Amino acid sequence: MTHSFAVPRSVEWKETAITILNQQKLPDETEYLELTTKEDVFDAIVTLKVRGAPAIGITAAFGLALAAKNIETDNVTEFRRRLEDIKQYLNSSRPTAINLSWALERLSHSVENAISVNEAKTNLVHEAIQIQVEDEETCRLIGQNALQLFKKGDRIMTICNAGSIATSRYGTALAPFYLAKQKDLGLHIYACETRPVLQGSRLTAWELMQGGIDVTLITDSMAAHTMKEKQISAVIVGADRIAKNGDTANKIGTYGLAILANAFDIPFFVAAPLSTFDTKVKCGADIPIEERDPEEVRQISGVRTAPSNVPVFNPAFDITPHDLISGIITEKGIMTGNYEEEIEQLFKGEKVH
Amino acid sequence: MTHSFAVPRSVEWKETAITILNQQKLPDETEYLELTTKEDVFDAIVTLKVRGAPAIGITAAFGLALAAKNIETDNVTEFRRRLEDIKQYLNSSRPTAINLSWALERLSHSVENAISVNEAKTNLVHEAIQIQVEDEETCRLIGQNALQLFKKGDRIMTICNAGSIATSRYGTALAPFYLAKQKDLGLHIYACETRPVLQGSRLTAWELMQGGIDVTLITDSMAAHTMKEKQISAVIVGADRIAKNGDTANKIGTYGLAILANAFDIPFFVAAPLSTFDTKVKCGADIPIEERDPEEVRQISGVRTAPSNVPVFNPAFDITPHDLISGIITEKGIMTGNYEEEIEQLFKGEKVH
Repeated sequence: MTHSFAVPRSVEWKETAITILNQQKLPDETEYLELTTKEDVFDAIVTLKVRGAPAIGITAAFGLALAAKNIETDNVTEFRRRLEDIKQYLNSSRPTAINLSWALERLSHSVENAISVNEAKTNLVHEAIQIQVEDEETCRLIGQNALQLFKKGDRIMTICNAGSIATSRYGTALAPFYLAKQKDLGLHIYACETRPVLQGSRLTAWELMQGGIDVTLITDSMAAHTMKEKQISAVIVGADRIAKNGDTANKIGTYGLAILANAFDIPFFVAAPLSTFDTKVKCGADIPIEERDPEEVRQISGVRTAPSNVPVFNPAFDITPHDLISGIITEKGIMTGNYEEEIEQLFKGEKVH
Repeated sequence: MTHSFAVPRSVEWKETAITILNQQKLPDETEYLELTTKEDVFDAIVTLKVRGAPAIGITAAFGLALAAKNIETDNVTEFRRRLEDIKQYLNSSRPTAINLSWALERLSHSVENAISVNEAKTNLVHEAIQIQVEDEETCRLIGQNALQLFKKGDRIMTICNAGSIATSRYGTALAPFYLAKQKDLGLHIYACETRPVLQGSRLTAWELMQGGIDVTLITDSMAAHTMKEKQISAVIVGADRIAKNGDTANKIGTYGLAILANAFDIPFFVAAPLSTFDTKVKCGADIPIEERDPEEVRQISGVRTAPSNVPVFNPAFDITPHDLISGIITEKGIMTGNYEEEIEQLFKGEKVH
């Protein structure tokens, strides 16, 4: 399978380092950073140089594998203990993204039966690479499944960046756009800029243009008017965490789009891999919402746009209740309504739909 | 009536000059400019140093009165001819702003019966001051009428800047907040930053803080989550033009807020003076929507936030259909539903409600 797919990789394993695309410098500069310590990895996640739940998971996994290489002991139990410390440290970098703890957990499991430190270190690298490989295949399948929801010429709205650079490749919500491009379906994408951190304008607009996809940028405030005037066919977004009942945590602004789509009778889709589901969480109200630095709202790219001491409310995510979601698209298929039941089936290993 | 009202005046008449608050420098700098020529006035309006339909009208009126002082002739007919030239010139600064031509027209009328140049010059100054005085009274009445819709401790959301600095004083949508402050009603305001031009963060947040009013800044994308989490009591916005049936053109983003408010069962109010109604326009669909420079969306305060060549959709306004509006508050009272009929009554000179 060949791709004319010009979007740079977000994360790459280089044995003695992890190379990441510095997403803070986009769209002006395509800069790559080499991360060599667990502190580098922690910092890259906290400062959003790497972002997107799957990409964060992959980076953290590579980070744990890399840091583990430097654990100097021959005692497997001691190794595991110190591995656990690094894992806790990396896991504390961002609270909402479930893929972070999920990926780190997988790495932990991979050393459970290791009988030597050497074997454990090899297992960790192998497992981290495996997570990345699986993620690419997962994203491709999500794209394939989502594609059947769209038809030639459709106008699709999205928010944030659930794209190639947020994952191993293809993305989740943006994956069908790349596959549609290959099939010449001519979708037209409306990207919401996604204040405060502007992942829509800085990343999605840039990424889709790199991929030769027809994209128009709007501010978040233009969503309602655009849905009406441009006759938007569907909205598709990614997810940071999906509860047992289908309630979905995603970038702040998603909930508003879902309400607007509902008012205009436009289908609203969530695209996410199985790793985004947190079946321990009953419903959206139980998902913690990260509140970030007020300066994100008072400034834009270092330029002050508000009084320096104005009180700010800066939630990074919101919760879209499941009843506003027309379908959740995973690598295993599309769920379309009775999420509680369908998600349960999904995790019994049964293919849904 | 005494006010502890610390918000600077947007426009002041100083006999030999007009002092304006330079709104382009806010919130970083509280700079006042002295305008002494018609060219100064023209430039201040074109470059948005003064903004808000009523404030533009007042500035233009003062500008015409000031420039007329320097017309050197004793012949009233010659005086009127030269006055007309200056009027045309000032009127061309922002041809779409309805208050601009309305205010200039009023000044023209004020010299119709003057029998000397001296009388004409005096009439012009008097009429311009009268426009400002009337606007302040109009805004105060709007505030007074709106205030009965709120109760102690309410959390009110607004967008753009329909405030004191957009008018003579008090503002329209923000007027009740100043009156509530005087009565110690303790309203809490959530200001949407209002991309792309950020009137919410640059102007409303600043203005309310100057007035000692409790304000929290959010991005436009946070409106839905904030309505839910902070249990917003009401939304109140200004208007750029109101059609015969109550459909309201206002800053882009207003329509979305109205849909969200509706979904959360939160009352959504429009506050505007009678001069904002355009009874020649049947409904919102007939109001032309200005599309502005794509660079407003690709940049923020001169800082690039998107690929330089990304296609952009940049409508400056949207239309909120009347059925999403819980009430329209004017200086004559509050209309609450059958707008077509109530607006007709309003312009028959009858007090509504």
